[in-house]
Amino acid sequence: MAHINLGLDEENFPGITGLLTFRQETAAPLNALAEALLHAPHPTLSPGERELIAAYVSGLNECVFCATSHSAFAAAQLDGGMTLVSQVRADLDSAPVSPKLRGLLRIAGAVQESGRKVTASLVEAARADGATDLEIHDAVLIAAAFCMFNRYVDGLGTRLPVDPIAYEEAAGRVKTIGYVRTG
Amino acid sequence: MAHINLGLDEENFPGITGLLTFRQETAAPLNALAEALLHAPHPTLSPGERELIAAYVSGLNECVFCATSHSAFAAAQLDGGMTLVSQVRADLDSAPVSPKLRGLLRIAGAVQESGRKVTASLVEAARADGATDLEIHDAVLIAAAFCMFNRYVDGLGTRLPVDPIAYEEAAGRVKTIGYVRTG
Repeated sequence: MAHINLGLDEENFPGITGLLTFRQETAAPLNALAEALLHAPHPTLSPGERELIAAYVSGLNECVFCATSHSAFAAAQLDGGMTLVSQVRADLDSAPVSPKLRGLLRIAGAVQESGRKVTASLVEAARADGATDLEIHDAVLIAAAFCMFNRYVDGLGTRLPVDPIAYEEAAGRVKTIGYVRTG
Repeated sequence: MAHINLGLDEENFPGITGLLTFRQETAAPLNALAEALLHAPHPTLSPGERELIAAYVSGLNECVFCATSHSAFAAAQLDGGMTLVSQVRADLDSAPVSPKLRGLLRIAGAVQESGRKVTASLVEAARADGATDLEIHDAVLIAAAFCMFNRYVDGLGTRLPVDPIAYEEAAGRVKTIGYVRTG
């Protein structure tokens, strides 16, 4: 059971979904932020690449709900699928991603520890491999945002889905609809 | 200089302000989230109390821009002013705040480390001192959100204001207008 009474059947509202239902005033900007960062059109980073950053940071934060969710969302939108996601999460240095994406993931990993861990040399290395200012900005903000989402989900003691198929179902919705609720 | 070219005069856009100008697609939900958490009407927590949670967490994250900003914003809206804010940031256990607010700040301090540090006993202690589910929810989400804002501001290497009067000027704006931009 969550740390607070969400006023709903937690089995049907695992992880962040119950929290978004509990407090709609904060749900609206949280959903809009996820949409802008992960699903909205982007000049150079695909939704799958952006979800991979979210999954990687959520794994570092050991947030099981978010790491499993965003791994599924990344896998559903990347050519390499779950194999690639698992390789990145297990060993970023050897995973078969582009040098630019590896550089962005390294920046994200630094952000997970602290904003002050992002050094000029980390940024310059990503830039030397082709990262743009917008990509560096978004990698930092996606990583920072998941340091929020992970703490929100775990800090209120939310439940995991009873049936792991829920992650796959959510991946299908996120891929097609994204994060902004219509009703 | 920031880690990326923000395309503006950084002296006039310190901390998060330059980032919000650089990327307006993410600025809108970030401002809306700050407004909902810190400034919008709340049944029981004053804006000053909510800003105090933001200042406390930003201090723990050693984010100078956010800690100084939200300390000024809290001080401008709390009867105890900066004396009280400084006492809370220096030694929460002895600071002259209500037991309920101390309990919420302890939960926020746990969130700053990790969502998984929020224990049932921390939550029960706050509840025994009168904290409601909504207050516990908001304390967790304010703390989590500042783990994002702090990393965003520091992870992109933003500047501090040249003149510290900028924090006081911002405090006046936040107290009266809040966080949602109109133009």
